[in-house]
Amino acid sequence: MHLRVINPTTTTSWVPDTLAMFEDAASDGTTVTVATIPAGTPSIESRRDEALVTPWVLRAAQAADAEGCDAIAVDCMLDPGVHAAREVVGIPVLGPCEASMHLAATLGHRFSVISVAEHHRDLMIDQARRYGVEPRLASVRSLQIPVLELEDDPDATFRTMVARAREAVQHDHAQAIVLGCTGLAGQAAQVQSALEAEGIGVPVIDPSAAATRMLETIVAMGLAGSLITYPRRSGATSAWPEPLTRH
Amino acid sequence: MHLRVINPTTTTSWVPDTLAMFEDAASDGTTVTVATIPAGTPSIESRRDEALVTPWVLRAAQAADAEGCDAIAVDCMLDPGVHAAREVVGIPVLGPCEASMHLAATLGHRFSVISVAEHHRDLMIDQARRYGVEPRLASVRSLQIPVLELEDDPDATFRTMVARAREAVQHDHAQAIVLGCTGLAGQAAQVQSALEAEGIGVPVIDPSAAATRMLETIVAMGLAGSLITYPRRSGATSAWPEPLTRH
Amino acid sequence: MHLRVINPTTTTSWVPDTLAMFEDAASDGTTVTVATIPAGTPSIESRRDEALVTPWVLRAAQAADAEGCDAIAVDCMLDPGVHAAREVVGIPVLGPCEASMHLAATLGHRFSVISVAEHHRDLMIDQARRYGVEPRLASVRSLQIPVLELEDDPDATFRTMVARAREAVQHDHAQAIVLGCTGLAGQAAQVQSALEAEGIGVPVIDPSAAATRMLETIVAMGLAGSLITYPRRSGATSAWPEPLTRH
Amino acid sequence: MHLRVINPTTTTSWVPDTLAMFEDAASDGTTVTVATIPAGTPSIESRRDEALVTPWVLRAAQAADAEGCDAIAVDCMLDPGVHAAREVVGIPVLGPCEASMHLAATLGHRFSVISVAEHHRDLMIDQARRYGVEPRLASVRSLQIPVLELEDDPDATFRTMVARAREAVQHDHAQAIVLGCTGLAGQAAQVQSALEAEGIGVPVIDPSAAATRMLETIVAMGLAGSLITYPRRSGATSAWPEPLTRH
Amino acid sequence: MHLRVINPTTTTSWVPDTLAMFEDAASDGTTVTVATIPAGTPSIESRRDEALVTPWVLRAAQAADAEGCDAIAVDCMLDPGVHAAREVVGIPVLGPCEASMHLAATLGHRFSVISVAEHHRDLMIDQARRYGVEPRLASVRSLQIPVLELEDDPDATFRTMVARAREAVQHDHAQAIVLGCTGLAGQAAQVQSALEAEGIGVPVIDPSAAATRMLETIVAMGLAGSLITYPRRSGATSAWPEPLTRH
Amino acid sequence: MHLRVINPTTTTSWVPDTLAMFEDAASDGTTVTVATIPAGTPSIESRRDEALVTPWVLRAAQAADAEGCDAIAVDCMLDPGVHAAREVVGIPVLGPCEASMHLAATLGHRFSVISVAEHHRDLMIDQARRYGVEPRLASVRSLQIPVLELEDDPDATFRTMVARAREAVQHDHAQAIVLGCTGLAGQAAQVQSALEAEGIGVPVIDPSAAATRMLETIVAMGLAGSLITYPRRSGATSAWPEPLTRH
Repeated sequence: MHLRVINPTTTTSWVPDTLAMFEDAASDGTTVTVATIPAGTPSIESRRDEALVTPWVLRAAQAADAEGCDAIAVDCMLDPGVHAAREVVGIPVLGPCEASMHLAATLGHRFSVISVAEHHRDLMIDQARRYGVEPRLASVRSLQIPVLELEDDPDATFRTMVARAREAVQHDHAQAIVLGCTGLAGQAAQVQSALEAEGIGVPVIDPSAAATRMLETIVAMGLAGSLITYPRRSGATSAWPEPLTRH
Repeated sequence: MHLRVINPTTTTSWVPDTLAMFEDAASDGTTVTVATIPAGTPSIESRRDEALVTPWVLRAAQAADAEGCDAIAVDCMLDPGVHAAREVVGIPVLGPCEASMHLAATLGHRFSVISVAEHHRDLMIDQARRYGVEPRLASVRSLQIPVLELEDDPDATFRTMVARAREAVQHDHAQAIVLGCTGLAGQAAQVQSALEAEGIGVPVIDPSAAATRMLETIVAMGLAGSLITYPRRSGATSAWPEPLTRH
Repeated sequence: MHLRVINPTTTTSWVPDTLAMFEDAASDGTTVTVATIPAGTPSIESRRDEALVTPWVLRAAQAADAEGCDAIAVDCMLDPGVHAAREVVGIPVLGPCEASMHLAATLGHRFSVISVAEHHRDLMIDQARRYGVEPRLASVRSLQIPVLELEDDPDATFRTMVARAREAVQHDHAQAIVLGCTGLAGQAAQVQSALEAEGIGVPVIDPSAAATRMLETIVAMGLAGSLITYPRRSGATSAWPEPLTRH
Repeated sequence: MHLRVINPTTTTSWVPDTLAMFEDAASDGTTVTVATIPAGTPSIESRRDEALVTPWVLRAAQAADAEGCDAIAVDCMLDPGVHAAREVVGIPVLGPCEASMHLAATLGHRFSVISVAEHHRDLMIDQARRYGVEPRLASVRSLQIPVLELEDDPDATFRTMVARAREAVQHDHAQAIVLGCTGLAGQAAQVQSALEAEGIGVPVIDPSAAATRMLETIVAMGLAGSLITYPRRSGATSAWPEPLTRH
Repeated sequence: MHLRVINPTTTTSWVPDTLAMFEDAASDGTTVTVATIPAGTPSIESRRDEALVTPWVLRAAQAADAEGCDAIAVDCMLDPGVHAAREVVGIPVLGPCEASMHLAATLGHRFSVISVAEHHRDLMIDQARRYGVEPRLASVRSLQIPVLELEDDPDATFRTMVARAREAVQHDHAQAIVLGCTGLAGQAAQVQSALEAEGIGVPVIDPSAAATRMLETIVAMGLAGSLITYPRRSGATSAWPEPLTRH
Repeated sequence: MHLRVINPTTTTSWVPDTLAMFEDAASDGTTVTVATIPAGTPSIESRRDEALVTPWVLRAAQAADAEGCDAIAVDCMLDPGVHAAREVVGIPVLGPCEASMHLAATLGHRFSVISVAEHHRDLMIDQARRYGVEPRLASVRSLQIPVLELEDDPDATFRTMVARAREAVQHDHAQAIVLGCTGLAGQAAQVQSALEAEGIGVPVIDPSAAATRMLETIVAMGLAGSLITYPRRSGATSAWPEPLTRH
């Protein structure tokens, strides 16, 4: 199948990593392509950012559908535009947060999300509540490093991830860890090993991989978003706001 | 105070009614002005529509702030852009859904929302969950009339509103009613009287009026959205996507 | 409108402050009068106290109704007699707790209540649960000062309020603060400023003001408690227990 | 042990039945006495009634404690004054609602309460929420017969109880039944048999018996209400309102 | 990978279908083998049955682990022994209920489970609660056909499945369907098509396929059950009860 | 009545204590006998152990029923086999966890469970959720002593119990304590006194005593598990796995 990953930010520098990460996560039969939105914000760190990138994500979703992709992943833990996109395309659309929270719930009694900035806590709690798994959310702990600086000192970022995961286990009774920023993804295995080396045997989930695999599952099973929950929008194009159409 | 009402749709035909309705609801000291977004969708009936209008709502919110307005109401039961807007302006921003659901909770044991279309049910349930009052939500019943046709046969619409409210009381144990579409607002008093005439004494809440009054309250008390929940976005303008800036 | 504030204690010393506080909070068109119950307890610090003052609050509510008042606020965070009073009078009755908890929920993701005594915690948690906003309650922290000593050292009381609010923000992730004792009310603005001076930008809510404004809203909107939730009690007077009637 | 049953109404006609019912439910070692409050309301059908009888219940509780009783049951499904009474006496105090809801939760997956009047529904739902067993409450169905007329046509009342229980099982998936009015108590066994005769094998719980037995358990185990939840009120007597002391 | 499917019943007649079904659901790289437990009950229709088969499931899990399987699926919607098995083997173990409920939650706002017998309702509700997705469970509707008779009249069984799914959508607001008995699995696609033909566009989930794919995901991501939630049991063999060892 | 206590482990050394403890807790009219299962695990510290002992508990329950016992208590806080047993015998079956959690909920606002090992936390939380009293669970704190070493240094065990209870009260706002391991039972009164001596007035509940007394209540009231929740299994014996029948 052809998986289209939408990079819902205007930052193209991490596209190669994103592509590698998703290709890594995908099965042999899956082709991965990444599309970056033409306008929006360089990163998504707030409700405002989410609001500004969402129309472009819908646009990118329609493009992916038109190009014959089989499924769409939106590469951000806020799952920006994921549920709205289900109304504009017929193919499955999923985000890393929804996928990883449900997967985490099957691996441990309660899980913690390691987010980037402190104020992401509420957003993650609201996601968990919306997805129905809040009773399984142990805590949200943050690196307190701006998304765009995550890669400035990778070692420090890594050590901080491990530290936050350890705190979540020791203080919040977390029993599984979700790396709550796709910018952190691709490192789940190393974090898991680092914790294991300390005698902390918890699964550490890479949200992008979770989304990739769950989308493969949905496609393989011939499923898609419910048309009752996500009725297809008629007159979509005509209703589209002018400024957004050109691009 | 100066209340700016944002009409989050491109339909200008109902602006006069909207203005009258909010002026009606406001205290003497309050001036009301309505701003319609320059692009988006003619009505908001889905997640997609919500996504498409939101950036324009943020723009309109910034404009209202720049013009010296004291508070902003976004005139739609999905409260589109309300929470994101709190990150881009310093003045209070509120939507009719959040305001009316909390007000309804103080008037009866459980309340029902009379929405327009059937698929609004989920959206209203999610709002109630997000706002923390879900235990007080008895049900969501819908007119099953497209928003844009609500005014084609006002009498039929009115009779249907009363019928749905009656059903909510008789079958779902609703004890208060929220008119779940701002297109229905302004008629709460009549619906309440019609029910009262049948011996059904339940408060019927006009969400626009609830938002207006609650905003007056917030301003009068010198309050605003928490800066922890809604941190002001630095670099807002520079980060703004090109296509949205012209307007 | 004429707002009757019921002081549900036998302590008259704080009536002047109460009156000033509510007049401060009220709109221009609102007249405020305060009535103290003739018997009960000097303060309300327990379920027993609440039980003992409630019949007198109902009495005072009937008197207010008979005198033509338009709305009634019961000046205590336990909202003593508020819901029972809705069964004996036709005018709106509201308490500071119900009003402030719902208002707080619209301003921040979670709020904390600063109560007076440690054992008020349960009572506040039960209120939040009953009002349906428990998911939004971050914590209850107490001054641990007896109500009647609150005014002995106002500065110490103030500093303690600020300290508790700070702790709620820093340790419990509170994002809005409710001053959980009407004896503390009137100082919300100063507490908010003190926190702001420390770089903590959270709204601090004066429960009495919240009740005042929300009652003005309910009256202005032509609403009142649901007659299904609060059926008017027939034969009220005849059923009234002897000892309570004389007064 | 000596169990004091407080009849929290001014209606003495049902005292003989009450006494018989509790004696029936009690173990051999238990002596039962009934005390009727000197003032209040003839029955408790609303929040107002509950408020008016509660101070007298506290008085009666103090009297029972002074007379050396070992435990107190307040004979009404609203458990009026039960929790406040725990602050004024050292002996265990329990109500039929709290006792029967917890017992019902141990016998079936979900239980329904058969209440008397329609508007008792909210009160029962609030009780279940307060007691923490709401997830186990299937429904509340009402006889829609005024408390004081329950005994006018015992057969009709009985048939209605059975019908409501049957409806709760068939329509609400109830698997255990609580007779939600102490006026109905003493008939649980017959209702259970009548349902069994129809092939409906559900336990039917007599709330008064549940309270009696659970109080015997609490006494036998040397337990009592938590002093943290129910701190003993110092200065109780002095604080007592004048009009209530004479009696 | 090698997926071992444990048939947790003593009925071998459906093994060929089970094998075909899981092979159908699996990716190319996956080998499927089925093991039937040597003793237990012919089907699992109650808590007793679940209790009786569980030790044998643990035994079968140990055998699969010893044989070098990569993952284990227990083929029953009650997920019998799944969580206990995670304590005795190092490889991932999953059941169709946990897998399908989480998958369903990502496809629609609320889902319904079509179970076999009426009394499975509670068991499914408890599963949803335990798995943390209860807020997303719309209802449980049952075929009311004994498991062992499901294949007597396949057409009738199929028509009943479709009818129950339709009722769940129309009466319970279900937006996704889980076929709540593995005996029904393999027919999800047909049920989905039959509903689609009626204009009901809801995803219908085959729980066995969901478990297969989710296990492939867990293995591919290098994950396994949390060692904090499922600590490996030391001395397992020695502690094993005699009668169970021989086999 | 004749109460049969099932010791769901293969450890007979604590049978005398168990018998004494239950006889202590029982009323005069009650005869207590203890039966130890013939195979299983020496203690129950995991889901695996629970799974392995459960069939033997069902066997022991059938034996008790056949011997004419009136009620059955399974002496372990995980209530192993309790709910399945209700399907195989007609007499009431109860476990110490279900009994003590419901009793605790009637004595304090929130209760904590003092469990033995750290990993019991999840199991206790799941029990509280299943029993519907999770909102009343303050915390689970563990002694971190293996069950089989509990009696090696009784004083140290006792001091640790008191310390954990104190921590639960001081840090988790617990207001009642449940001794979460039947191995700790019989000491509730001493722990309660020790805390009282420190000025901490919380009820400390012995789960075995709670089960004993609640079973006496259920029998005295002529109740038993709902036949809808726990339908009697026909063909039980024939379906019974061979290895389990001999014994």
